[in-house]
Amino acid sequence: MFSLHTIKPAIMVAMLSVAGSFSAFAEPMKFLNFDQQGQLIRPTGYREWIFIGAPLTPNDMNNGKAAFPEFHNVYIDPVSWTYWKRTGEFKDETVIVKELVSVSGKQAVSGNGYFQGEYIGLEAMVKSRQQFPKAPGNWGFFRFTIENSDELHARAAAQAEHNCSTCHQHNAAKDQVFTQYYPVLRAAEARGQAGSGR
Amino acid sequence: MFSLHTIKPAIMVAMLSVAGSFSAFAEPMKFLNFDQQGQLIRPTGYREWIFIGAPLTPNDMNNGKAAFPEFHNVYIDPVSWTYWKRTGEFKDETVIVKELVSVSGKQAVSGNGYFQGEYIGLEAMVKSRQQFPKAPGNWGFFRFTIENSDELHARAAAQAEHNCSTCHQHNAAKDQVFTQYYPVLRAAEARGQAGSGR
Repeated sequence: MFSLHTIKPAIMVAMLSVAGSFSAFAEPMKFLNFDQQGQLIRPTGYREWIFIGAPLTPNDMNNGKAAFPEFHNVYIDPVSWTYWKRTGEFKDETVIVKELVSVSGKQAVSGNGYFQGEYIGLEAMVKSRQQFPKAPGNWGFFRFTIENSDELHARAAAQAEHNCSTCHQHNAAKDQVFTQYYPVLRAAEARGQAGSGR
Repeated sequence: MFSLHTIKPAIMVAMLSVAGSFSAFAEPMKFLNFDQQGQLIRPTGYREWIFIGAPLTPNDMNNGKAAFPEFHNVYIDPVSWTYWKRTGEFKDETVIVKELVSVSGKQAVSGNGYFQGEYIGLEAMVKSRQQFPKAPGNWGFFRFTIENSDELHARAAAQAEHNCSTCHQHNAAKDQVFTQYYPVLRAAEARGQAGSGR
């Protein structure tokens, strides 16, 4: 017998992943959901997923118009995280969410810098052989942001390849993901390759 | 009957929290551990906790010597996160970890900005009535960073009050925590107060 209480979060995530294989009684836990028209239903609960990094492209360093304003808090779903740790690869149905956060100020008692303010947008890239059989890496890219609003679209159609994928294909370090800016992914991958686990 | 597979991460965290109350068979899951001398044993696994924000105080905006170089990836342990969502308070035994990450560059295809490089340090604040009965808010502050090394101390003694606590007392928005820079905490608190849960 075991108690849930004895299970570390990392192990619980692994158990969830494994449970998907033999559960006959329940729908699998899905982070990736499309509607009948093939639109991606906006992911929820991602602030409890695994944070992988926070690039910052502030408006004041981009002529007032950053392409991705301003902090990008980036998360991967927990099942794909477990798979990444083991393999250094992104599994089918990986969901990576980029939540955009404004800069609230540039000075604090801790020093000069950039400090996170309010949520201003949400984007996602998802890997799906079923939905994107011909897309490079089977990735689709989505934008839920509503300009000048703190609301988000409930669902979104995939972006045209030239809007997102082309740049990701040419510049991202690993399978269209900018792992070069995501220390959490890089460190976990290094440990996996060394066979030391986490 | 339920399958682990049907349980959302947020609910699992809540279950862990509740499980602590009635488990008679196992040691409780501890995020907070002190040695016999009262030194804090360095937390592990925190990259799988709840990310709460990423302040940035880059060296190049602080005369080359930021007090907290450079990105601060800040996390709260999952049980204390569940409590925060419900109450907007930090429970006894809260652990908040600040992992320091260098700036690897200031230009990317996404724009000009700041991008995360390598891990360069680790600090923590922990709330413990038992260990810090007389400290304001029962908070203790710890530093595991080894200068000019990518290693960390395995344990650390609490910092003197004037090193950390005094500033936190005077400048942090909530119970010595700089929630004003942590949108994840602020958003969860707002939801809790509105009674909508997460």
